[in-house]
This record gives sequence, C-alpha cells and structure tokens, in this order.
Amino acid sequence: MFREKIKVLDCTVRDGGLINNHDFDRRFVRAVYKGLSEAGVDYMEIGYKNSKELFSPKEYGLWKFCDDDEINKIIDGIESRTKLSVMVDVGRVKLEDIVPAAESPITMIRTASYVKDIDKAIYMANHFHEKGYEATINIMAISKDMGPELDEAVHQIEEESKAMVVYIVDSFGALYQEPVEHLVKRFRTILKTKEVGFHGHNHQQLAFGNTIESIIHDANYLDATVYGIGRAAGNCPLELLVGFLKNPKFDIRPILDLISHEFIPLREKMEWGYIIPYAIAGIMNEHPRAAMALRKSDKKENYREFYESLLNTGLE
Amino acid sequence: MFREKIKVLDCTVRDGGLINNHDFDRRFVRAVYKGLSEAGVDYMEIGYKNSKELFSPKEYGLWKFCDDDEINKIIDGIESRTKLSVMVDVGRVKLEDIVPAAESPITMIRTASYVKDIDKAIYMANHFHEKGYEATINIMAISKDMGPELDEAVHQIEEESKAMVVYIVDSFGALYQEPVEHLVKRFRTILKTKEVGFHGHNHQQLAFGNTIESIIHDANYLDATVYGIGRAAGNCPLELLVGFLKNPKFDIRPILDLISHEFIPLREKMEWGYIIPYAIAGIMNEHPRAAMALRKSDKKENYREFYESLLNTGLE
Repeated sequence: MFREKIKVLDCTVRDGGLINNHDFDRRFVRAVYKGLSEAGVDYMEIGYKNSKELFSPKEYGLWKFCDDDEINKIIDGIESRTKLSVMVDVGRVKLEDIVPAAESPITMIRTASYVKDIDKAIYMANHFHEKGYEATINIMAISKDMGPELDEAVHQIEEESKAMVVYIVDSFGALYQEPVEHLVKRFRTILKTKEVGFHGHNHQQLAFGNTIESIIHDANYLDATVYGIGRAAGNCPLELLVGFLKNPKFDIRPILDLISHEFIPLREKMEWGYIIPYAIAGIMNEHPRAAMALRKSDKKENYREFYESLLNTGLE
Repeated sequence: MFREKIKVLDCTVRDGGLINNHDFDRRFVRAVYKGLSEAGVDYMEIGYKNSKELFSPKEYGLWKFCDDDEINKIIDGIESRTKLSVMVDVGRVKLEDIVPAAESPITMIRTASYVKDIDKAIYMANHFHEKGYEATINIMAISKDMGPELDEAVHQIEEESKAMVVYIVDSFGALYQEPVEHLVKRFRTILKTKEVGFHGHNHQQLAFGNTIESIIHDANYLDATVYGIGRAAGNCPLELLVGFLKNPKFDIRPILDLISHEFIPLREKMEWGYIIPYAIAGIMNEHPRAAMALRKSDKKENYREFYESLLNTGLE
C-alpha cells in the first residue's frame, strides 16, 4: 500500500543498543546509516541522549549519550535524506545539555514516558520543540495502562503539548491486533492535531502484524529495525515493513545487503528474536526482564519452570 | 478468547516432515503425540497417505505413508483425546488403500488441492466421508488464486462435497491481514454448511497474526506446529496460539516441555524459521522452492542477488 504520509523510523542502533549497552562501533553505525540512506528510510534513531552525570561513559558505549560531534563523524561524507532522531527518557537527560536544533545534526527528539510521567514528558517535549526539534512522546508499556488514565494522558498531550507524533509502544510485545485497533482508533479520535505512531515488540511474532494493523487504522509513524534487532525478542523487521509498503521512495536492497554483511554475523554474537521465554513474557503481559535474566543463566531452556514462576508472581 | 467451536490441529510431524522427507523416528513422534495429548490439542496430523507405487519407502520415512500399524505403535499405551489426521494430495493416493474409518486409528483425512484440481478433491473428500472419516479440503497456494475461479471452487465445494471444513492455505506466506479478512468473510458467506479453517506460513512472520485475523472473522479450524516447525519459514507456532486462546481445555506446559527437550536440539539439525530468502519469497508471493535451493547453496546469504533474480523472473 502507498500512503504518502507514512514515515518509517529505523531504531536499529537505539533499540539494538539495549542489548549491548549501546556499544556499537563507529564503522557499524556508519554502515547502518549508509544503508538506511540508500534505502530511503525517513528517520534513523541513533541512540539515547543521557546525562553523563547519571551514566558513566566507562560502562556504556557512545550511543547512550549521542554527542553531536560523534554523530557528525558517522554522517560525514554520506549522501542522505534520512533525518536523525534520538530518544530521551524522563529524568535521565539534562535539558541544558541540548543545543538548539539549528546547531545539531539531530532533527527529532523522542521522549519515552510511562503514563504516570506524562506531565514531565509534555514539559520535555515542549522544551525540545522550542529549541527547534521535531518532538514526539512515546508512551511505553501501554499494555499495562489501557484504562481511563491513558485516555486522560492522551487528552493532556493533545491539549498541552507541542509534540508532533504520539507513539503507542507495546514494550512487552503483549498486544494482539484487536487492542492495537482499539488504541489507534482512540488515539486518532483524541489527537486532532497530531500524528499517531506505533512501535511494536516481537515477543509473540506480532510486531509486523501489529504494525500493519496500526497502518490500517491510520497510524503514520512506524518504527522498525534491520532484521528485527532489539531488546529481548526485538522489533518489527524493517525489511518486512518496506516490503509491505509500496511507496516507491523505498528500496529494500540496501537493507538486504546490511543483513547479509552485518546482521547475520552480528546475530552470532548478540541474541534477539523468537525465543520462548520472551514469548512467555509477552503472553503474560510482563516486562522481559525476568526472561532476559533467565537467558543468561544455566536454566535458559527450562521454559516450564519459568512459565510457572511468572504464573505464581501474578498470584502474589 | 474462548470460543468453544475452535479446534486446533497440530501438523508438526506432517508439515515438519516436508523438511526431512518425513523421516522422524518413532520415539520423536511418540513424544510429540504424548505432549499434544497432555496439552489438550484437538487433532494431530501425523503425515501423508501416499501410494508406495508412487514414492519409494527407501527414499522417504514412515510418515510419507502413515500405515495404520505404524500409527498404532505410536499411540499404544498413551492416554489421549487427541484425534489423528492425515493429509492426502490429489493424485498421490490410491483410494482403495484407505480402509474404513472404523478399522483405522485415523479420524480425519484432509485433501490438499490447488483450485484447478477441485473436482478431484471433491471426489476424494466424498470418498473418505463415505468410509466414515471426517473429511476436509485444503485449498493450497490461495494467494495465487484469489479471483473468480476461487469463488467458483468454493461454491462447488459447498454444493457438491461432504467436506466438513474448507481450509484457506497461505502456502507462500504471502497474505497480509486484509486479504485474510477478505477470504474468511467470503468463505463464510458461501460455505453455509461447513466450517472454515486457516493454515498460515510464516515467511513474513505473519502466520500467528493471520491466524488471529482468521479467528476474528470466524474461522474455527486452526493449524499450528510446535515451535513453528514446517517447510521453509514454518507455520503458526502452537505455543503462541494456545497462549492466545483462553479455552481452559488447553495446557501450554507440555508444549513448552516439547520445545525444551525436543525442538531446541532438533533446530540445530534442521532449518526453519525467519530466514531472509523465505521472507523475500513471501513478499514476492512466490513458492519457497527457489529460496530452499538457495539455502542449500554457497550463496545462502546473498539476499540481494536472490531478490533481483525473483524480480527478473516476474518480468519474463
């Protein structure tokens, strides 16, 4: 399908960085930027803007901080119409560290927030907007927060914020198509001046299907990652999304090359994808934290015990 | 969701057998039967009934032929309410080899057919019905045959056949949710006396999502396989489907045990799942044949060349 308003945001380096403490080397990030640029992807999210007072550069890689001069090294000399995005978490960035957009290679800043922190997220998004960035608010873990508190937060965003896009983020990979339909319709009803975005997680192999579902109901900002890389089960695979969207501005071939040359070898060293403990966490609508710990233990394939431990947690 | 009419058919050994010439050993097949029985799965499809005059038992394993005495060895001594199914292809079975249902451990015979062979499929399904079996017709490669010829075939099945279920089979993993919705609604409209089934393939990670879509629009017979095993990218993972269906007759835990103990080691020896050439075949709505050949060659990760070869095939 071809809908011109649709924008694809690749968050390979940002969400993939959650697996390796954002420690991708510059050569790899440059290769991703080049491939995405050739593929015609609208945005590339390169990492987080975190305060170095809160996280040590000794423990985390470059893309936990996304200094502008590091970003400039990545993009130098590569022809591109792909805009750059960074993510910020509520409470983890010093706003005074953010320079005006006109002085930065970054075009978009996305503020990730739980429903409970939405006042802070609105404040931050407005701050970034005033500095000249495209601002978005990404509502995380939405499968845990679908009651009236969510409605109220979305109303508040519509009325008080300068955010251009509001994302539905299925952090736990717990949503099926019907809840996605419900959420996108609800967001579209309330957000008369903003676009709706969707960020899926693939715990139940539904990230791509749910992204299609969001498109059907008029979400126009879509997140994906090359070969589905991302924390735990990962995200919607960019190659599938581009294969589905018929907009001639996209070319799937540079993405296929990236997978052949970078992501097949990378997958030997980093784990993501369809892995049963993540599927179980998705089915149970739980954070993948316990599943990620299991995968690092010697019980990594002991699925029944893990399932029963989550069942019992729920009963406590 | 809980809809009592829903029946889950596991085709692990049948569709998985397409990877290894149906050569699973008896111990493995017995373990699968025991696990599915404990999980409360409604049907287990154990293989194909093929004529030994057409295929040599020297080249193929037991489950290419599914002799009743072999099936009896599998189920002997295992408490179960899981019914057994076999598949037959048009033109590959001698009808006189099929004994009456009352003398066989098999309950259901599913006839797989392309739209063009539907007359033969109806004849065969009626023959199996007369011998006392539950009979179904499974329309393969449906993404290539969605025009008026399909409508005509479905009308003919409704009017002329004794089949109890008619399956939509997305052999190429090419369907998205909207075509699934269209097909299931169309089938439900025409098939006033029969149930609709859905069999997805996972080339684009949509087998589970499309199965949910079919459920939403009232398909009641659903195919799945343990850990998604099956030809090329495989099928809808049974563990996800059982996790989604809230019918208390199912227990996911024996399926998790099967994956831990049988399918994780098996996956080291047999290839299926999300693999880019299969995704490309799905995007292009092509049989995975060329992708399967590629995976056995030294160009197995050369995705761009493979994509371009399929593009050029389409232009010939």
